[in-house]
Amino acid sequence: MKKKFSGILIVLSGPSGIGKGTVIKQLLKKIANLKISVSVTTREPRDGEENGKEYFFTDKQNFLTMVENSEFLEYAEYCGNFYGTPKKKLLDMLNNGNDVILEIDVEGAFQIKKIFSDAISIFIAPISEDTLKHRLLNRGSDNETSINERINRAKKEIECATDYDYLVENVDLEKCVEDISKIIEVEHMKTKRLSYIVKEG
Amino acid sequence: MKKKFSGILIVLSGPSGIGKGTVIKQLLKKIANLKISVSVTTREPRDGEENGKEYFFTDKQNFLTMVENSEFLEYAEYCGNFYGTPKKKLLDMLNNGNDVILEIDVEGAFQIKKIFSDAISIFIAPISEDTLKHRLLNRGSDNETSINERINRAKKEIECATDYDYLVENVDLEKCVEDISKIIEVEHMKTKRLSYIVKEG
Repeated sequence: MKKKFSGILIVLSGPSGIGKGTVIKQLLKKIANLKISVSVTTREPRDGEENGKEYFFTDKQNFLTMVENSEFLEYAEYCGNFYGTPKKKLLDMLNNGNDVILEIDVEGAFQIKKIFSDAISIFIAPISEDTLKHRLLNRGSDNETSINERINRAKKEIECATDYDYLVENVDLEKCVEDISKIIEVEHMKTKRLSYIVKEG
Repeated sequence: MKKKFSGILIVLSGPSGIGKGTVIKQLLKKIANLKISVSVTTREPRDGEENGKEYFFTDKQNFLTMVENSEFLEYAEYCGNFYGTPKKKLLDMLNNGNDVILEIDVEGAFQIKKIFSDAISIFIAPISEDTLKHRLLNRGSDNETSINERINRAKKEIECATDYDYLVENVDLEKCVEDISKIIEVEHMKTKRLSYIVKEG
């Protein structure tokens, strides 16, 4: 009996400030086969962010041209900026057998699940609202209006968590990374993801 | 945000001789919360088997009385003997929040999945037919007719593996036990198994 694996698309969401970026960095270090889908955005880079690493940064005009050319799997406007998932690169990675992680907001996640029914969706659940606010303030890259907007959004997003396949708590970074690794590993054991060649005799 | 877990029913199948018994023993040692559902059978105990441990051994007449009294979730005849899953004890364990493992044949597994749609089904996949035959011969508890019948059944069962949720290979005992432990752990992270209390503020 032989198995043939194909790549799994992992959709990851969670409120701003929950630590998705750090979790993803650790996952990429830990799992050799895992790649990330880098989104395109029109928002300004934060300190230390590199073009092509956290995001592909572009202007609004170019973003809208990409939309016209159907270069996105999905895109959305959020806090006045556009965010989009580039189609070709993601499909290439999946076809190559890589698992691909895609950090995306709740609405984007639903759009992706409609297109890829076999994608798995993971919601990283937060600690308390106070801790979340504290983390956002410490990050220092958002003003008060932006922080409040992000917290209100977080509250709404948590209500959406039940629509995800899995919920993982990010109380302890190491445990969170370990949990997501296990989810990916176990998803590869699902019979629906395997092709069989039964050897007779 | 609080979580409330309830017990998960784990249906485990695989061809005779694949080592299900050993795997289950290791799982029960490893996972404190895991209990086993002991089946009732009319077959003769093998050397070393204890009543109430591997099986509850009974005679045909008593078995049929239990059938009449609706004491089984499902039952079946296999190689001339009856096997049944006692209902009350299994439900009590699940209600107590225990995960319960149930070793059962392919047809029994389908019956159980009809009753418990949230049960997870795991198929332990074999090595080659030769190795399987070798193991059955080494066990010394089956005659040649029984061995051939078991091997034919194994072939049919492997074809059914695709209808299970998960496929785990038992090439290496430790890895097999580890894989099944991870499946159970990850299933507990599924949002459909969680109850939420979202704490505001």
